[in-house]
Amino acid sequence: MPEIVRVKMSNGEITREKNEKYLLAGGRGLVAQLLADEVDPACEPLGAKNKLILATGLLAGTTASSGSRTSVGAKSPLTNGIKEANVGGNFGWNLGRLGIKAIVVEDLPAADHAYVLEVGENGIKLLVRDDLKNLGTYETSRLLLEEYGKGASCLCIGPAGENKLYGACVAVSDPQGELKFAARGGMGAVMGSKGLKAVVALGTKENRVTYHNKDLFTAAARKYTSELANSDKVKQVNQKVGTNGIFLAVNAMGALPTKNFSQGSFEYAENLSGEKMYELICERGGEGRTGMSCMNGCAIKCSNIFPDVNGKKICSTLQYENVALLGSNCGMTNLDDVARLNHVCNDLGLDAIEMGAALGVAMEMGLAEFGNVESALKLLQEVYLNTPLGRMLGHGAKVTGEVLGCRRIPVAKGQAFPGYDPRALKGNGVTYLISPMGADHTAGNCFGARATVDPLGTEKQGDLSRNTQIQITTLDCLGLCMFARPPLFAEPQLLADLINGLFGTELTVDDVWQLGANAIRTERNFNLQAGISPAQDRLPEYLYSEPLAPTGHVFDLSEEEIQKAVVK
Amino acid sequence: MPEIVRVKMSNGEITREKNEKYLLAGGRGLVAQLLADEVDPACEPLGAKNKLILATGLLAGTTASSGSRTSVGAKSPLTNGIKEANVGGNFGWNLGRLGIKAIVVEDLPAADHAYVLEVGENGIKLLVRDDLKNLGTYETSRLLLEEYGKGASCLCIGPAGENKLYGACVAVSDPQGELKFAARGGMGAVMGSKGLKAVVALGTKENRVTYHNKDLFTAAARKYTSELANSDKVKQVNQKVGTNGIFLAVNAMGALPTKNFSQGSFEYAENLSGEKMYELICERGGEGRTGMSCMNGCAIKCSNIFPDVNGKKICSTLQYENVALLGSNCGMTNLDDVARLNHVCNDLGLDAIEMGAALGVAMEMGLAEFGNVESALKLLQEVYLNTPLGRMLGHGAKVTGEVLGCRRIPVAKGQAFPGYDPRALKGNGVTYLISPMGADHTAGNCFGARATVDPLGTEKQGDLSRNTQIQITTLDCLGLCMFARPPLFAEPQLLADLINGLFGTELTVDDVWQLGANAIRTERNFNLQAGISPAQDRLPEYLYSEPLAPTGHVFDLSEEEIQKAVVK
Repeated sequence: MPEIVRVKMSNGEITREKNEKYLLAGGRGLVAQLLADEVDPACEPLGAKNKLILATGLLAGTTASSGSRTSVGAKSPLTNGIKEANVGGNFGWNLGRLGIKAIVVEDLPAADHAYVLEVGENGIKLLVRDDLKNLGTYETSRLLLEEYGKGASCLCIGPAGENKLYGACVAVSDPQGELKFAARGGMGAVMGSKGLKAVVALGTKENRVTYHNKDLFTAAARKYTSELANSDKVKQVNQKVGTNGIFLAVNAMGALPTKNFSQGSFEYAENLSGEKMYELICERGGEGRTGMSCMNGCAIKCSNIFPDVNGKKICSTLQYENVALLGSNCGMTNLDDVARLNHVCNDLGLDAIEMGAALGVAMEMGLAEFGNVESALKLLQEVYLNTPLGRMLGHGAKVTGEVLGCRRIPVAKGQAFPGYDPRALKGNGVTYLISPMGADHTAGNCFGARATVDPLGTEKQGDLSRNTQIQITTLDCLGLCMFARPPLFAEPQLLADLINGLFGTELTVDDVWQLGANAIRTERNFNLQAGISPAQDRLPEYLYSEPLAPTGHVFDLSEEEIQKAVVK
Repeated sequence: MPEIVRVKMSNGEITREKNEKYLLAGGRGLVAQLLADEVDPACEPLGAKNKLILATGLLAGTTASSGSRTSVGAKSPLTNGIKEANVGGNFGWNLGRLGIKAIVVEDLPAADHAYVLEVGENGIKLLVRDDLKNLGTYETSRLLLEEYGKGASCLCIGPAGENKLYGACVAVSDPQGELKFAARGGMGAVMGSKGLKAVVALGTKENRVTYHNKDLFTAAARKYTSELANSDKVKQVNQKVGTNGIFLAVNAMGALPTKNFSQGSFEYAENLSGEKMYELICERGGEGRTGMSCMNGCAIKCSNIFPDVNGKKICSTLQYENVALLGSNCGMTNLDDVARLNHVCNDLGLDAIEMGAALGVAMEMGLAEFGNVESALKLLQEVYLNTPLGRMLGHGAKVTGEVLGCRRIPVAKGQAFPGYDPRALKGNGVTYLISPMGADHTAGNCFGARATVDPLGTEKQGDLSRNTQIQITTLDCLGLCMFARPPLFAEPQLLADLINGLFGTELTVDDVWQLGANAIRTERNFNLQAGISPAQDRLPEYLYSEPLAPTGHVFDLSEEEIQKAVVK
């Protein structure tokens, strides 16, 4: 069975172990179990007692499409609770093939160095690489991939992580050398506190993934992958407009974050839409592309490169959440401005969602101007300079709003809302409140169910949120991308077959969903012990009293409805 | 019985009521009961649902020495829990004589004005006074006292409160027109959120205090006041060196906050001592004074005016906590520097303890220099300018430390430590953790028991803290100064006689202590409902691992010992 690698930053000690206990724990579930077993929930997130966990899902390194995402987890400096952020790229794929289930980074470094952990078939080494100090994520990964070869995948932090900013993310390189981000919850700050600048997972000759029943696995993997690859949604939506394909739909619902969540639709929405993005990429050509895979063997191919008018790359990948938060939420009227902001956030190693929300707050308070990209870029320069102002912004929307004295701070449990105003998509409001992850678009996003549950209604939202939380968390345990869900949710036996084929278990479909449910239970218990009381299950007060145009709705769900979303 | 006045800032409505329920609730106990009865514990501290309460103690306006302190309470933006800060000055005395038990300030103002509430025998009026906007506390109270006459007492906020900084305090004028401060927990920010710049309690001709058994009351009041006035401690210590008389003792214990709590004693301690202060005041003459009462009829007279070399007033009053936090904790080597810093904090309307801790953190992170008063004054200028940097500092040590990325942030429950490092006075560490007030020198200060319970020991600290919390809170309910305690704790029947004489009750001494204990129970329950879980009963991690010179101690009490301090 795959190994768990431990790296103790205080003395450089590296150990490897196999533990049957974690056989069926993967991704988010493995993060939850390891943290619950080993970390004091009341510890300081950036202190010696916290641990950074890089975990693969159960399917890592296999032939199942979109199944090698990497979970990055720790106690979060942003939410003060447990956090898992997962990310595409080839890191998880490489770890899976190396026979590594998780890397657990412990303790604080004895000296102020930038360390790189090199993980390959020939061993694991912790190296001092002070030459990488303060480099952006792009330069860091470029240098390391140049050194270790294209087969390698680089997981790294930027200056924001090194400076322990609560909005710092973790970047992971994909097959094209572009970067994907484990964005949320300040996992980059925890990595920075450990002194770990990067982890390189080398490419492998040998594949150490073993299959207990390869026929069963392969049949399920083929069926699922083929259905996914041949679906209209993947071909017509994911591979062209990517996740930003929902932009106009969210705008039409009136749930689009606009000018610091002060309205739910934006007059320039067309300009920021996925359709416009696709049109511009095709029209401008040059380095522009769509339909790129973010990990080996992924059939979804939703990545893109957005070029400027001269065809030169501005940013890869433009995604819905980032366009909503850095775009309409900051009043930006075109995708070029959004792409420029997104690129800077990526390079700093900052969560673009958290920063879009923080910039929106800063704009409301007069530090920059809605729609003025230069004023926003100027603020982001402060983050590079690590000034008090830059640090405030880099800590995210809550700290920025508190320091500046803003009454409208769009956060739940300390974390900024993603691209759905909870007043016009109430199920997401429930998820922001009840999920142990705080406000997170990947923790139980009810947008997909808008045709069956009225986003403005006051009923069925609790059940919807809970079920979605469980389903999505289950995917997170397997390392599967949530955009792979249509064929899997239509025929969940495929999920059971994939696991049983790999491990020789006899899980039923119900057992499979319990992987997700159990992870959430473990997380919620961790948060309770961390001092996050259910009394904190509240959204900011303005959401209960200020109606959101154009629907005119406030967040008005009953406590009873909200509590239905708790996974008991 | 005395009235409760309510002021609704949204429409200016003023109502007055008598409520038997609160007959025996006074000061801190009245704050606790009113907040528990009327305020949603999970509300936003600076939002419409919070209420600001100005409450008198049970003895307000009577002839009992030092018994007319004013309790200022609300849910705190600093701790996110319940908060009461009490203060001398003549405000409570005047309110008591006006027959007013409490003023409850509700809701948010409809317009952006600076309001003044005028409270007198001829009625209560809410006035728009935009001419006072952004004025310092000294200028505000000078103008209002000039207008309303010397018999009036002015309770006001400075720019910090108007700007809703979490470190903002509430200032109250004393018989000399000098200011005293309800310093802790950001009560000034709550007052600022209500748009209330000042409350003026006018002097009275008629005294509305009624006595059920005047003989009983007067006998007790005379005995207590005379014992207090004639005690050596009052005459030799309080009236000369004031609260700063303990400076050298705390230094000798090794518990003195020094350079951001990095050491427990300071090489320039002699320079900052009460003895040195008294010597300089006598030597310099001019406006310098000691032995001043902070409210009518107080026998303790611990107030002072500290003059510069030319005899011109720098600051009134220099007190131990402020000298410790703005002095040794900021590395200041003389009282002139401390007095200058203290005066600026006072004028801004900022808690000098919170600011001393915030400046210490800022100095450790390189924003100013330990011992360099000009560098510290420069930072405080940012608060006047209301810049993001100034706002960060004005929010106190926690926000400052988090933004700047400091690992040593001397706070408990969001509030800065007062002048006792918990590693060398462990009972106070217990109080910081367990008291619903967070780190507060008035919530159960174990310094006075250093001869009977070893400050460095690991036993008896829980019981000591709990008993001290109950005793001091009882004084807070009566409106009594804690420096009046020697004759009262020696003969607690005096406390019962005072209450029974006033109200015709038949309280035993045990009943009297239950006033304090019940207030704490109510507060703790409020905090639990506010989401402050017992899991948050932790000091910062560095206190458990970094030994404090010169004793070499860490905070090493068992969880069992700490939990003994909970008032069950």
